[in-house]
Amino acid sequence: MSTQTAPLRITVWGENRHEKTDQIVQELYPEGMHTTIAEGIEEHLETNAVVRTVTFDDDEHGLTDDVLAETDVLTWWGHRAHKEVSDDVVDRVQQHVLSGMGLLVLHSGHFSKIFKRLMGTTCSLRWRNEDDRELVWTVDPAHPIVRGVSNPIDIPQQEMYGEFFDIPTPDETVFISSYSGGEVFRSGLTFKRGRGRIFYFSPGDQAYPVYHHPDVRRVLANACEWAANSGERALPALQRTLPV
Amino acid sequence: MSTQTAPLRITVWGENRHEKTDQIVQELYPEGMHTTIAEGIEEHLETNAVVRTVTFDDDEHGLTDDVLAETDVLTWWGHRAHKEVSDDVVDRVQQHVLSGMGLLVLHSGHFSKIFKRLMGTTCSLRWRNEDDRELVWTVDPAHPIVRGVSNPIDIPQQEMYGEFFDIPTPDETVFISSYSGGEVFRSGLTFKRGRGRIFYFSPGDQAYPVYHHPDVRRVLANACEWAANSGERALPALQRTLPV
Amino acid sequence: MSTQTAPLRITVWGENRHEKTDQIVQELYPEGMHTTIAEGIEEHLETNAVVRTVTFDDDEHGLTDDVLAETDVLTWWGHRAHKEVSDDVVDRVQQHVLSGMGLLVLHSGHFSKIFKRLMGTTCSLRWRNEDDRELVWTVDPAHPIVRGVSNPIDIPQQEMYGEFFDIPTPDETVFISSYSGGEVFRSGLTFKRGRGRIFYFSPGDQAYPVYHHPDVRRVLANACEWAANSGERALPALQRTLPV
Amino acid sequence: MSTQTAPLRITVWGENRHEKTDQIVQELYPEGMHTTIAEGIEEHLETNAVVRTVTFDDDEHGLTDDVLAETDVLTWWGHRAHKEVSDDVVDRVQQHVLSGMGLLVLHSGHFSKIFKRLMGTTCSLRWRNEDDRELVWTVDPAHPIVRGVSNPIDIPQQEMYGEFFDIPTPDETVFISSYSGGEVFRSGLTFKRGRGRIFYFSPGDQAYPVYHHPDVRRVLANACEWAANSGERALPALQRTLPV
Repeated sequence: MSTQTAPLRITVWGENRHEKTDQIVQELYPEGMHTTIAEGIEEHLETNAVVRTVTFDDDEHGLTDDVLAETDVLTWWGHRAHKEVSDDVVDRVQQHVLSGMGLLVLHSGHFSKIFKRLMGTTCSLRWRNEDDRELVWTVDPAHPIVRGVSNPIDIPQQEMYGEFFDIPTPDETVFISSYSGGEVFRSGLTFKRGRGRIFYFSPGDQAYPVYHHPDVRRVLANACEWAANSGERALPALQRTLPV
Repeated sequence: MSTQTAPLRITVWGENRHEKTDQIVQELYPEGMHTTIAEGIEEHLETNAVVRTVTFDDDEHGLTDDVLAETDVLTWWGHRAHKEVSDDVVDRVQQHVLSGMGLLVLHSGHFSKIFKRLMGTTCSLRWRNEDDRELVWTVDPAHPIVRGVSNPIDIPQQEMYGEFFDIPTPDETVFISSYSGGEVFRSGLTFKRGRGRIFYFSPGDQAYPVYHHPDVRRVLANACEWAANSGERALPALQRTLPV
Repeated sequence: MSTQTAPLRITVWGENRHEKTDQIVQELYPEGMHTTIAEGIEEHLETNAVVRTVTFDDDEHGLTDDVLAETDVLTWWGHRAHKEVSDDVVDRVQQHVLSGMGLLVLHSGHFSKIFKRLMGTTCSLRWRNEDDRELVWTVDPAHPIVRGVSNPIDIPQQEMYGEFFDIPTPDETVFISSYSGGEVFRSGLTFKRGRGRIFYFSPGDQAYPVYHHPDVRRVLANACEWAANSGERALPALQRTLPV
Repeated sequence: MSTQTAPLRITVWGENRHEKTDQIVQELYPEGMHTTIAEGIEEHLETNAVVRTVTFDDDEHGLTDDVLAETDVLTWWGHRAHKEVSDDVVDRVQQHVLSGMGLLVLHSGHFSKIFKRLMGTTCSLRWRNEDDRELVWTVDPAHPIVRGVSNPIDIPQQEMYGEFFDIPTPDETVFISSYSGGEVFRSGLTFKRGRGRIFYFSPGDQAYPVYHHPDVRRVLANACEWAANSGERALPALQRTLPV
């Protein structure tokens, strides 16, 4: 009846470039944004899990086939080095997502190669960086990703990301944000691709302490649990068949 | 090759109650809100059309079976008298929508019997009436309803309608609004029900001159063209069949 | 970190009318279809649960406010007595679904008052009862409802339910069926309404042993786990608010 | 009020490889499949249009920037030479689709570079080529693409394409097919990407006379009208803005 579940295996990928040169980022994230993100997820998970971090400068960006095969959910934060990410690694991550690995794409990751590859669109948006207050409203109150999260999430200072966000129609719109400047943004979105589940979440800029915000950390943990797929891990394939 | 199309037949339904008692509404809409709405639609339609108005106080609320059978698109504004609307008329309107009549539900019409009937949910929302500025952002730039409409639509004074809006997942989210107070709202939404197309559009309160706003009028006209269904007009029915 | 979860509370509602008069139904389901459905769910659940049955002839059809308040997921099989179901009970079930109770609507339940109320459409379809073989194909292989289920599910004899099925666009299409006669049907569908999750599953007629089929039983158990909502149980309500 | 509309500009792209070597294809489509497709569209269009054909062997596959800029809707049939299609041309077609050009992807085009690029998934499926009868059922009777089309479309001989079809959730499911062998397939699907509208339609194999079938031709013509976007033609772009 009841089952002992294997621990959830989460890999937090960090670009880790701003951290090397920008003083403000170093002060906010002294051990790197990926470390703060990983700690936030660990802190709020309700299931047993193993969380590790890898970064751009690791061999193959830390995303070998072995690492991905042992990852239930990958989180992706990148910004400055999108174009330098190896196409081979992007191919590999895409194959694993379509095979059933969960993926969380964070903030400026909207312009990462892997997100554009999975969406098929430009993923462009409106932006402005002027210390806006962002309010993140729940529009799907029964979604597991919003469990225990304030409504709205109140983020005192953030970069503004606004519509039109050029993405396919999401499978689910979980959060919509407003900004002091009056813009709106679909800020928490789910997409299924192949056997994989993807969650895009926009709050989180390197120049603001967003990944220290308890509600943001809670969303990330909830989203990891949601994105993990307990079913078969296999790439959908062309199948020549006999009549049934 | 080319076809001469019959004129679009639009019926604007107005509750016409505030207009009888509230001075501010009388000043904004001296001939009734329905008249202003009808004029706005006529002014911006790009196809040949006949627009008429009917109101709550007409016999059977003006919505006899004959009137509905000769209506391609019905628009619905109500507020104070939702509960007084006859259930028989609601049944009849629902049958016509499911048979292929288009329906525009406006502003406080979110709580009308017909909208709740078609949605199956409470259609409740968050609200506040404090002269907020509303900005209506386009999130589906290729949708025919946004053709020629400013982005954002800037409405200087409006009642605030905010999330969570308790509706089924819309087929399309065309507009999302922000308010001075920081709230957000899915303000332009499409739904298919049976053979009918429904558009909900939230801007438009009796106490503000919203239906004189050129962009709002343009949206209503575009939505009438979008909601008209040139196909067969028939209620989906149980069908006992032979093997094919 | 880890949490002890309260057992899932499942209530199986059965109309229990065919069982009283039709010999073939009595032979297939000697203790009533509801008993077989309940046993099938219990047998395949992977979480701790309490499953009870109630029927049409129980006081208030067995669905008092107390029973519903203590139900995480309700399953509904009805056919002959749809019109006799009390409107008060239907109101009550709707309120509980919108508040977060899960609902499984089975087979001929497509024409139940509660399903039509939640959908807003006629819920009509094409049908033929001629011992068709039904093949139930998975079209969403990563959905938790298909876990451990054969693809296709092969049902040797079934009533045919075919398109057009007059329902709103489902949130997710999990299964699509074909029949010997060549028809197709969207046979496994999810809908969110308010805080509640709804699953419609068409296989299952009183005159065939469908609820003894191991794959069908597995689907029902998976769907109960999917439909249970661990979040807050509350009806979405109109909310007058202050600025944020 | 009324407007004189510019003629719809349709470009039919044909791979035109089977036609050069396979006798059966030559007999079915003596002037090439693209010619038959173009004639079918012209015959059934209800609006004024100019239809031209281009093929793989034309310079830049016939799809220069000038040709695409003057195309409202592009149709794509390919099979044998998918891998030989130039990546530069695929980039260019993608840009035009996201900018607002309509795209019809036909049958084996599910595995074309452009479709996989726009979907982000493997686009793989189940198949079998054994002269199955295909029945194409309408599941969205109010969609403009089904206007005047038989339900079901009865195609006496076809290759079987079955689920699981590895695509993102479609915006609309218009048709679902069954086959003699018992399989099902989501055979008519719409997707929005950027400002562009995409229709995938599976009936149509080189070895069967499917593009001579009047209902299939009607669907293609209707889909061209639906996919044409009268709005602005521009690639969604990153936009740095001022507060509103």
